[in-house]
Amino acid sequence: MDEFELIRTFFQGRTRRRDDVVLGIGDDAAIVRTRPGHELVVTTDMLVGGVHFPLDTRAGDIGYKSLAVNLSDLAAMAAEPACATLNLALPQVEPPWLEAFAEGFAALAREHDVELIGGDTVSGALVIGVQLMGWVPRGASLRRDGACVDDRIYVTGTLGDAALGLRCARGELGLEPAEIELVRGRLDRPEPRVREAMLLRGLASAAIDLSDGLLADLGHVLDASGVGASVSLADVPRSDVYRRLQEQNLGWEAAVAHGDDYELCFTVSAANVPALEAAFARSPVPCTYVGRIESEPGLRLLDEQGREVRLDVRGYSHFGAAQRNA
Amino acid sequence: MDEFELIRTFFQGRTRRRDDVVLGIGDDAAIVRTRPGHELVVTTDMLVGGVHFPLDTRAGDIGYKSLAVNLSDLAAMAAEPACATLNLALPQVEPPWLEAFAEGFAALAREHDVELIGGDTVSGALVIGVQLMGWVPRGASLRRDGACVDDRIYVTGTLGDAALGLRCARGELGLEPAEIELVRGRLDRPEPRVREAMLLRGLASAAIDLSDGLLADLGHVLDASGVGASVSLADVPRSDVYRRLQEQNLGWEAAVAHGDDYELCFTVSAANVPALEAAFARSPVPCTYVGRIESEPGLRLLDEQGREVRLDVRGYSHFGAAQRNA
Repeated sequence: MDEFELIRTFFQGRTRRRDDVVLGIGDDAAIVRTRPGHELVVTTDMLVGGVHFPLDTRAGDIGYKSLAVNLSDLAAMAAEPACATLNLALPQVEPPWLEAFAEGFAALAREHDVELIGGDTVSGALVIGVQLMGWVPRGASLRRDGACVDDRIYVTGTLGDAALGLRCARGELGLEPAEIELVRGRLDRPEPRVREAMLLRGLASAAIDLSDGLLADLGHVLDASGVGASVSLADVPRSDVYRRLQEQNLGWEAAVAHGDDYELCFTVSAANVPALEAAFARSPVPCTYVGRIESEPGLRLLDEQGREVRLDVRGYSHFGAAQRNA
Repeated sequence: MDEFELIRTFFQGRTRRRDDVVLGIGDDAAIVRTRPGHELVVTTDMLVGGVHFPLDTRAGDIGYKSLAVNLSDLAAMAAEPACATLNLALPQVEPPWLEAFAEGFAALAREHDVELIGGDTVSGALVIGVQLMGWVPRGASLRRDGACVDDRIYVTGTLGDAALGLRCARGELGLEPAEIELVRGRLDRPEPRVREAMLLRGLASAAIDLSDGLLADLGHVLDASGVGASVSLADVPRSDVYRRLQEQNLGWEAAVAHGDDYELCFTVSAANVPALEAAFARSPVPCTYVGRIESEPGLRLLDEQGREVRLDVRGYSHFGAAQRNA
């Protein structure tokens, strides 16, 4: 089986055909009709086995996650996803693995009406590169550089469960079966906040997705916007299992400094808070007020008495001392 | 140095800013203004060290080639390149290597007015994934499926030099220094036929770029178009060094069955031949008539007496028995 057959056999026809895709997989390039009044939004992420996911992760979860992290990036721009390309380096062709990988990828693609329009497969160590394109009304995208002093800082969902999932995967944490399922689900099948991002259009002033942890990612917003912030640790939303473990010996690090949650962090002016909270009142995914933008540079974590807390942690960095998930 | 600094340090600002790029490197995604009356054309290719290029290839040549192969795909659609994303898995951060890689990539990008708008870097075995986007007037793209019976088949430039370059790189072929420079240049720095592709708009009926060899790639055109073809071997354009080696013991395989030439192969109706030849009369890169589309399925190679020649060769396939360039 050569690389043409491989894409055709495992991927073609698995995602829904979109009306704006003029030509999909099978030629030298794909052709996409543009959307009047909209701008094209483009993101790309690369996943490496042993770095971005444990090597024993199920193929379907790898396929799912490789698209999910890109959907999360588009959500952080308030863009609507449309089509993707997939680059796959594989040590060997194992049809059951590829079948499961493709279905994990495609199930999430169908959920968000994304069509796979191209790709390349080569032999090599397992590396997955996904590039995702989408549309945003002209001028309506959310960037990192729009946060203003006195804006409120919100995050969606709960933070830290993916970190617990990784500890479970490594055998470092013993949990009840239902808890394991929850935290492994957050690690292996994070739900990109695409629908929630649509609620932010016209309301949020800046946004980012939490791939490297709240401290690192909110830090990017602060740097880009030329501002600082205070965040109240007690307000950081956590799951029941996280709160239960905090009553034992779990600290704040997993919730604020570990990546992989793929929730959104965004800022909203005081004037837009009522409209934002009304919009999220109908959303199954909550958003939670965690802090405020300030003029003083830097990110301050506060305890319940308003005293500054220092955590000796950083967001994940490639090429740093340690390897995530490896 | 983390992955954010890495992209910024080595890549940001190295390619020219385009007017239609609203937001480039540095946010969760890039934003691109669409072009009225045009369709978006998207291609992607992945290169693996030891598979797509010898492991001792110079970093600048790897950077160059990783963009060149994608430019070649867009050229095969008659699209004008605009912006690219880059995924890079690296075993370690070596600033001189990255500097050279980035400059090889960016020099070619500047030549074709391509802006690098995003990317991702991870630690891992050397893998490069490039995704390239461009614009084509609505309906003006060239596909593989448009070849009609009696159309003429043309190729640009000369074929087979990249194969000779690879044999040189492997120490299998002794040549004069000037010849080595020529064939290694064809292997390491193929010139994507972007300008020539613009000449084909409105004239060619189908096109493909020659990445896997004339037999395999023209075969894709024939399959997609539901036709066959005859190609005259003697008419296949070859360089002086190729012709000289043919007087010794070199066969046709390198010219018709080895990939990596990145010339264009296209078909033209008899009615459009005069306009095509007039357009190429002003081009520094020639195009050469090599055969004709026929109704009988299959691709026939003919000798100078018009007799069919059988070569026991195929285009390169990943996951097949042999590894190219490894």
